Amino acid sequence: MREQYRGELAGLSEHMVEMTRLVGSAIARATRALLDADLALAESVIAADESVDALQAEIEEKSLELLARQQPVATELRAIVTGLRMTADLERMGDLARHVAKLARLKYPDSAIPAELRSTMIEMGQIAERIVAKTGSVIATRDVTAAMELEVDDDAMDGLHREVFRLLLGPHWTHGVEAAVDVTLCGRYYERFADHAVSVARRVTFLVTGERAPLAGASPLGGTGPA
Amino acid sequence: MREQYRGELAGLSEHMVEMTRLVGSAIARATRALLDADLALAESVIAADESVDALQAEIEEKSLELLARQQPVATELRAIVTGLRMTADLERMGDLARHVAKLARLKYPDSAIPAELRSTMIEMGQIAERIVAKTGSVIATRDVTAAMELEVDDDAMDGLHREVFRLLLGPHWTHGVEAAVDVTLCGRYYERFADHAVSVARRVTFLVTGERAPLAGASPLGGTGPA
Repeated sequence: MREQYRGELAGLSEHMVEMTRLVGSAIARATRALLDADLALAESVIAADESVDALQAEIEEKSLELLARQQPVATELRAIVTGLRMTADLERMGDLARHVAKLARLKYPDSAIPAELRSTMIEMGQIAERIVAKTGSVIATRDVTAAMELEVDDDAMDGLHREVFRLLLGPHWTHGVEAAVDVTLCGRYYERFADHAVSVARRVTFLVTGERAPLAGASPLGGTGPA
Repeated sequence: MREQYRGELAGLSEHMVEMTRLVGSAIARATRALLDADLALAESVIAADESVDALQAEIEEKSLELLARQQPVATELRAIVTGLRMTADLERMGDLARHVAKLARLKYPDSAIPAELRSTMIEMGQIAERIVAKTGSVIATRDVTAAMELEVDDDAMDGLHREVFRLLLGPHWTHGVEAAVDVTLCGRYYERFADHAVSVARRVTFLVTGERAPLAGASPLGGTGPA
């Protein structure tokens, strides 16, 4: 029975890793749909978000069932409850990928991203993809050093986000207000996507070390969530 | 002992109601700081967010302690775990009020909001304040009818958000790209604030009725969170 319980806990982790895989694929495809003005790809990202939601629902149901049946205390209790918070972050990352895809769909057959911002957006998409892949590894391995490396990627994302504003507000912006609105929202989606990924990794760190990551706030479940 | 346990569960609810009071005050003051370009008020909102975070941390710690000590099942287990999710929504609402205040601070001594958008932003602030006050009542009373009324306020918020874009992208916008970026972000902060409030109310409804509110998605904890 104890063996089975261990297996069920590991199963929850595996489901969360699967969620990182799904939202990583979603943000990568959403970025491509955005840059290539690919309507079919955008639609597929929008439709696929249902699988992320379904996986979240399954993890929640299994977690509640485990809490009720196994009555865990201390470390295991904290792991399951923190897992629920991580799952909510991952679900939200799926929503943000869907938002990017919806913007691509809205602007079709144009691209929402002016030429001089393409390379910045490509990089934001790549960092988003990399960061969520690393988050998946952190969940699977509980490697605290890898979790800390995510902060570097997140800093890079913040730098790109500032670069977006620099271009938008600089003297050479010729694309008018509508493109500025689109790019503002899009930049924010990527930045929030990375924030949530970092939040998940910080929660894993807190579970492993019992110590909050620097700047992660006062929550006993490991951070007050993305800033 | 059972009496004491009941009291502790009620205490968690009271703490959440207190969170709604704090974030309601924060969004009301942030709106005023934004419209009046009031730097001191903006600073006070930014500083006060710490109290919201501290209250979240306290609720989380007490919830984990209750789960470990009382080993609840069924309804009570679901209530405590759902409460953790509601608390996370409320904490995020505090962050969004702080974001509005930070924008006010950034633009001081100017106001970030052009004249023709003032009435729309006042109304968004008022709906945000009203919606979170109602959310507090819903938590306190578990009144499902009141929870449903919040959806109407949320629809009104979405309508105002569309109005913001209509003005931004219309032929009469003369404030350039920087103001458009500010207004875009600001509009999104209010809209997300309302989304989180509605999400909290939906979770209460789900706890009371066992039924998900329409459109609330597949999560067994009552909705997949704000869209």
